[in-house]
Amino acid sequence: MTSTPLTDEHLRYPTGRFQAPLTYTDEDLRQIINQIQTLPGRLRNAVIRLNEPQLNTPYRPGGWTLKQVVHHLADSHMNALMRIKLTLTEENPTIKPYDEAGWALQADYRLPIECSLKTLEGVHLHMVALFESFNEDEWQRTYVHPERPGASNLQKTAAMYAWHSNHHLAHITETMKQWGL
Amino acid sequence: MTSTPLTDEHLRYPTGRFQAPLTYTDEDLRQIINQIQTLPGRLRNAVIRLNEPQLNTPYRPGGWTLKQVVHHLADSHMNALMRIKLTLTEENPTIKPYDEAGWALQADYRLPIECSLKTLEGVHLHMVALFESFNEDEWQRTYVHPERPGASNLQKTAAMYAWHSNHHLAHITETMKQWGL
Amino acid sequence: MTSTPLTDEHLRYPTGRFQAPLTYTDEDLRQIINQIQTLPGRLRNAVIRLNEPQLNTPYRPGGWTLKQVVHHLADSHMNALMRIKLTLTEENPTIKPYDEAGWALQADYRLPIECSLKTLEGVHLHMVALFESFNEDEWQRTYVHPERPGASNLQKTAAMYAWHSNHHLAHITETMKQWGL
Amino acid sequence: MTSTPLTDEHLRYPTGRFQAPLTYTDEDLRQIINQIQTLPGRLRNAVIRLNEPQLNTPYRPGGWTLKQVVHHLADSHMNALMRIKLTLTEENPTIKPYDEAGWALQADYRLPIECSLKTLEGVHLHMVALFESFNEDEWQRTYVHPERPGASNLQKTAAMYAWHSNHHLAHITETMKQWGL
Repeated sequence: MTSTPLTDEHLRYPTGRFQAPLTYTDEDLRQIINQIQTLPGRLRNAVIRLNEPQLNTPYRPGGWTLKQVVHHLADSHMNALMRIKLTLTEENPTIKPYDEAGWALQADYRLPIECSLKTLEGVHLHMVALFESFNEDEWQRTYVHPERPGASNLQKTAAMYAWHSNHHLAHITETMKQWGL
Repeated sequence: MTSTPLTDEHLRYPTGRFQAPLTYTDEDLRQIINQIQTLPGRLRNAVIRLNEPQLNTPYRPGGWTLKQVVHHLADSHMNALMRIKLTLTEENPTIKPYDEAGWALQADYRLPIECSLKTLEGVHLHMVALFESFNEDEWQRTYVHPERPGASNLQKTAAMYAWHSNHHLAHITETMKQWGL
Repeated sequence: MTSTPLTDEHLRYPTGRFQAPLTYTDEDLRQIINQIQTLPGRLRNAVIRLNEPQLNTPYRPGGWTLKQVVHHLADSHMNALMRIKLTLTEENPTIKPYDEAGWALQADYRLPIECSLKTLEGVHLHMVALFESFNEDEWQRTYVHPERPGASNLQKTAAMYAWHSNHHLAHITETMKQWGL
Repeated sequence: MTSTPLTDEHLRYPTGRFQAPLTYTDEDLRQIINQIQTLPGRLRNAVIRLNEPQLNTPYRPGGWTLKQVVHHLADSHMNALMRIKLTLTEENPTIKPYDEAGWALQADYRLPIECSLKTLEGVHLHMVALFESFNEDEWQRTYVHPERPGASNLQKTAAMYAWHSNHHLAHITETMKQWGL
């Protein structure tokens, strides 16, 4: 298989890189929330067809296995839920980043994926309940990621995690397509 | 009902306040892990008998409702899992505290408790997989809570969350005893 | 809204009435299994957006509420799993029908739908594990429904429950479309 | 190890054989319901500590593996729920027995136990909702098992499945005790 920069970009970013919208209509927010709301079910329906050897296969050369991708989604979205609640209860808090590559090497990433599918079901229900309760002021609240310029508001956070949901799900479904699944 | 300081202490700390052990035998660690492993099932078996009005009743005058206690356990133990993984992948990291009283007032604390029972099932499976994989060096790794003196190692963290599991479960079961349940 | 026989037929059978295929290719069976495998996730992703008043609304005038439809799917597919196993372990057994209209009026149909979503997740995993293990002889095994002519083989049973999954899911999603959801 | 009839009886019936009570007080029924209500959580908390080789070990020489016991509980209690609903919607129906030994040899009994733990959670919630709704007439309704003398009423059915829950859970926990777990 020849590997070109273009191919690598597509393997890494099958849904494209995250582009923060400049403005958000109510309909934009509704679609963002809907993507977050349905991620656990869409993820479950993809991985339900995979056996252990398939789950232990990387989605691209040198990349995470499909199992690591599932566990990463749980870890990342737990952190996201924490950041959203910090933002609601503090003024422009600086959040704590984490070493996602290091986390993916810990012992719990060898657990059956059901452990993280359950967590995601719970975490996304909480996220959606928060988003659906927001007024304009709450959507505009901000937090600071110490390694990124400026502050992020919760609209952008919601958009980013909708993208992040679809991004990693596509790592799994694109791999499955290559297998004829 | 007369309320004395003693009674208030018992209502607040039905299993006693947390006392960090000075040393940990293998058997101590095994029991700590077992308590963390079984909390989601024990919690589910307690709350499964409660209806919505019961879940919306405080466990002590002025305290959280039983539903808030369940959601708090999920939030607290998600934070704990994050702290454990930060400690495994960074040197003596300073973790980010959160305003647990403020979090308990957010919109997601009105969700059905099933949302948090699922999260706890997943989170505790991850915690236990990590603890069961630890060698002595990993048990001794530390993190700093910016509002507490000194550093905590992961043995003490495990002991504290076993206590925290039993502590809040007892808020629920002691309340149920008063109701003859 | 004018109600014509045609409309009533569409409300009752949004995916059309069940048509048993005459023959089944491997690809047909693969698609049938896939529809059964993904029903619990597709159902969860539909109903996750509904509140209690919406769940308590009939999908057509005089029809079941959306909540009754969810509970019916669990009851029906539990019965189906039982029939499949009877067929695997007895020679052309006569199965026991049940009064689905009467069952839908029992007290357990007022439970939160999560109770049946869980059951369906488990039941469909069992069904799929059986179907995926079948050789040609097992697909051809038969049972008798005392109120229907002839015997049904397990190929036809699989096709029928794939249809039944999509049929009732469409009752829910067609109703949601009318609500602009 | 010497195997005597007494030992074999204890291995087979660790909680004793089922003894149908002659009468049932409200408190008796409350305790029966409580045992059925808490079985899924108690079972999960037992098996959560077992790995695959342990789950694939028989609970007595020549007996089912612990994994088969878990899957049997799901199958048996699904059948029980069906029998209870048949009894509520028909007059003294004759139910369809099944070959539990044959069922335990089917391909789905090699699934991860989580598939049946989920089913049991759902099925027991339905059973309890029915039992808690019963008036005296409903408790007295009967069905006929074609291989057993006389008819069973729903009080006796509830008592039997509470016993059956504890009976098979004890197969697992007694085995774990022998392993020092």
